[in-house]
Amino acid sequence: MMQSSTHTNPIPLEELAQSVQVSILGSSDILISGLSHLEGATCGDLSFVLKPRFHEVARISKAAAFLTTQPISDDPRPQLICANPILAMATLAKKYFQLPLPQHGIHSSAVTGHDVRIGPNVSIGPLVTIGDRAQIGSDVTIYAGVHIGEDTVIGDNCILYPHVSLLTHCIVGNRVILHSGAIIGSDGFGYAQHEGRHHKVPQLGNVCIEDDVEVGANVTVDRATFGSTIIKQGTKIDNQVQIAHNVVIGEHCIIVAQVGIAGSTRLGNHVMIGGQAGLVEHLIIGDQVRIASGAGVTNHVEAHHTVGGRPAVAHNTWRKAQVLQYQLPDMRNELRALRKEVDELKRKAGG
Amino acid sequence: MMQSSTHTNPIPLEELAQSVQVSILGSSDILISGLSHLEGATCGDLSFVLKPRFHEVARISKAAAFLTTQPISDDPRPQLICANPILAMATLAKKYFQLPLPQHGIHSSAVTGHDVRIGPNVSIGPLVTIGDRAQIGSDVTIYAGVHIGEDTVIGDNCILYPHVSLLTHCIVGNRVILHSGAIIGSDGFGYAQHEGRHHKVPQLGNVCIEDDVEVGANVTVDRATFGSTIIKQGTKIDNQVQIAHNVVIGEHCIIVAQVGIAGSTRLGNHVMIGGQAGLVEHLIIGDQVRIASGAGVTNHVEAHHTVGGRPAVAHNTWRKAQVLQYQLPDMRNELRALRKEVDELKRKAGG
Amino acid sequence: MMQSSTHTNPIPLEELAQSVQVSILGSSDILISGLSHLEGATCGDLSFVLKPRFHEVARISKAAAFLTTQPISDDPRPQLICANPILAMATLAKKYFQLPLPQHGIHSSAVTGHDVRIGPNVSIGPLVTIGDRAQIGSDVTIYAGVHIGEDTVIGDNCILYPHVSLLTHCIVGNRVILHSGAIIGSDGFGYAQHEGRHHKVPQLGNVCIEDDVEVGANVTVDRATFGSTIIKQGTKIDNQVQIAHNVVIGEHCIIVAQVGIAGSTRLGNHVMIGGQAGLVEHLIIGDQVRIASGAGVTNHVEAHHTVGGRPAVAHNTWRKAQVLQYQLPDMRNELRALRKEVDELKRKAGG
Repeated sequence: MMQSSTHTNPIPLEELAQSVQVSILGSSDILISGLSHLEGATCGDLSFVLKPRFHEVARISKAAAFLTTQPISDDPRPQLICANPILAMATLAKKYFQLPLPQHGIHSSAVTGHDVRIGPNVSIGPLVTIGDRAQIGSDVTIYAGVHIGEDTVIGDNCILYPHVSLLTHCIVGNRVILHSGAIIGSDGFGYAQHEGRHHKVPQLGNVCIEDDVEVGANVTVDRATFGSTIIKQGTKIDNQVQIAHNVVIGEHCIIVAQVGIAGSTRLGNHVMIGGQAGLVEHLIIGDQVRIASGAGVTNHVEAHHTVGGRPAVAHNTWRKAQVLQYQLPDMRNELRALRKEVDELKRKAGG
Repeated sequence: MMQSSTHTNPIPLEELAQSVQVSILGSSDILISGLSHLEGATCGDLSFVLKPRFHEVARISKAAAFLTTQPISDDPRPQLICANPILAMATLAKKYFQLPLPQHGIHSSAVTGHDVRIGPNVSIGPLVTIGDRAQIGSDVTIYAGVHIGEDTVIGDNCILYPHVSLLTHCIVGNRVILHSGAIIGSDGFGYAQHEGRHHKVPQLGNVCIEDDVEVGANVTVDRATFGSTIIKQGTKIDNQVQIAHNVVIGEHCIIVAQVGIAGSTRLGNHVMIGGQAGLVEHLIIGDQVRIASGAGVTNHVEAHHTVGGRPAVAHNTWRKAQVLQYQLPDMRNELRALRKEVDELKRKAGG
Repeated sequence: MMQSSTHTNPIPLEELAQSVQVSILGSSDILISGLSHLEGATCGDLSFVLKPRFHEVARISKAAAFLTTQPISDDPRPQLICANPILAMATLAKKYFQLPLPQHGIHSSAVTGHDVRIGPNVSIGPLVTIGDRAQIGSDVTIYAGVHIGEDTVIGDNCILYPHVSLLTHCIVGNRVILHSGAIIGSDGFGYAQHEGRHHKVPQLGNVCIEDDVEVGANVTVDRATFGSTIIKQGTKIDNQVQIAHNVVIGEHCIIVAQVGIAGSTRLGNHVMIGGQAGLVEHLIIGDQVRIASGAGVTNHVEAHHTVGGRPAVAHNTWRKAQVLQYQLPDMRNELRALRKEVDELKRKAGG
């Protein structure tokens, strides 16, 4: 197995350290050619150590140098001491090791409608389709096979990966990343029931995605019935999440894979939802709420609370019950024993 | 946040009322420029009120007029009294406010195979691919990037949104809507096990989708091993639902997002399945059955029953147990207290 | 409803029997025109019977002949006795009844980058995009609208169905099948938290898929942060499964639809995971482990164990508790009855 992306020209450790503004413990006179986890590191790699309990793993790692929160004793290799090694790694990865984006220009096979406005320094890949009157800001990268609907507006510095469907009349902010297969602006699931038939309610609204949002692969975000389905700034959404019509997701939320959020539910800011959780419709979820993976949320949750379980309840209540479910056979046996003994006591007492 | 789709030419309320055959309570002499929920309504909007308990919200709404089941007292604005305001809204939205479909014609960049038959008034967008011998009825709209496989047959008045994959040999009825990223006719998941290896069983069947079915974004419907996976008329399927090979879904069912239905399971008519529920293979689910969201169905369900839980049981049984799971710590404590007291009683009785 | 794929030229049963090396019980002098399940069989079909308890269904089936583990008594039709009728069916289906793959050649509308290497006997459909320096082996079939990223390497005899996204720098072995809408190599979900903001950690790794792997429709497999997300040989993955960054899946595993596997979790060989199960991050799952559908795995699982439930525990523990959850109301009532009786006994004893 090869590592897919390493820097071909080694970089002085000194330069990397300066770039994230940390000083080097030990010799600074080495070259770094890649980034890696401790286990997978090969010579030339810079790796990272989050906690003292990983120092032992670090000592046997083949990494050339470390980003670490605390000095690793008895190790002669250079160490960059910093409070947040992952943040430093992310910064270095972005600046030195990430693959460059495609070159600017519009591929000849792309199909653009009329009155489309495209900003400077944009890259539009092969077989992209862009509907009439769509607007695209500057420094946007649109990969092969993306579809952008009519009247949709995209800000600056966005990346749309292959096969994204960003449908009509949607609004996307700056620095937004949409991963492959994401569908933004599909119809909400709404019907008027009449005499045993389901009559489609046209979905006239749109989807608004604010700045710095990232949307995972094969995510679906439905357009609103009226108004907008909204994902606010800084929120990150993992793969295969389903967001129904008229949902509002606050700022800087984290929504892990395969979560489903039903219609008109509103999340506050900094909400975190674990994988495969489900939220029913018309809920209000407060700021800083944490929802455990697999939870089934059927009631409003107040700010700063942590909930879990199906139906979701306070975290402690859920955790205690979760453990005890597997003691049910013992409890049932104890109940039977008590019944026998109580009957015997009653017999004696009555006798 | 803007509303994406409003009618540019205001329409007399009188005309809207006549169109859904209801009479107006109050002045009819106003113009309507959009539809909206009560909360998001702006001046010029027609809104709707389903129950008397929303009358207070209606009174403070900025809507210009209401569709309502019962008259809202103390409100001077015009009211259209009707039994099913959502159905009336749906009718008006479709007739007056929905965006027009793309114009007829086949985009020059579409790639069609040989012996393809295409009916009148069809719109085929850019970069669509249509396999050999496919047949497409009249008044069908096929958006950008759709793929239609060889020998597949599509009826009249269907809409296929961008990036749908409708694979070979499938049959689609009239007025069917397939949303972006839906995959119709992928291989069923079938293997012959032999000496620790999984040998693929070729999936020779197809998918048949009857009239008036709607299939959500990123849904997957596998083709049958032999014969057909069938979705019967009027059934509506939400986003990210998985339907395995040889499943039969009855008429007028509602299947909410992220449901999974395993191989050869058969649903009756008017079945409703809540989000994230799962059904194992080879089940028979009767007419009018309702399955709660998150349920795990492992047994047949008779007609007209409602089930929930994992494993799914009768709705009442599930609801009672669901509440009591969180009393397990109290029950355990009570058991311990009883044990102590019974032991003490026995000691006394024996002494 | 029609069956989509039958052989047009009937084949002598004798030839089919020889092809799977079994002898015929009864007359061999008939022609077979299709394969089918017992229920759906029509005259001319060869069907299969797995167990004696299906002999009755076989007797009333319209099939012309049977593949069966044991002779069906009192039935004059020809029978092919074999230990593994499904394996025999699979072999015959593949050799005689499967639709042929598209003809070789590169469609004129496909867009290939520079320095792309394509082996012999390859079929590349319309509107396929292939990035710079990609390598494709021999006898590969790439259907319409597939995207292959830069520097990605594909082995021999692979099939990529319409709208697959196989992103940059990935490695795919021989005889791999990727179904429509599968996304291979999307970014892992990784952020450095800093002052209430989520800073993207660039995902520099790739995805490696070994020989004989099958990946279902709309599956997502994220690329590793560093190194590789790995799916080892012979593993089969159903639709809508989510595999996070740095996951390693062993050889010959079966992963049913809608399963989610979180970051860095490692599966051994021959693991089976039921539909809608979820595994949290950094787990180690041993060889031959079986995970029940809907399970939520939060701890390592040793080889050869079977687990179920949320949180997942040993199969027996889970099954007992699962049944007893619905006896909770009875248990609570019994607890109350005991409390009353014990109090009465105490009152008497104390009196």
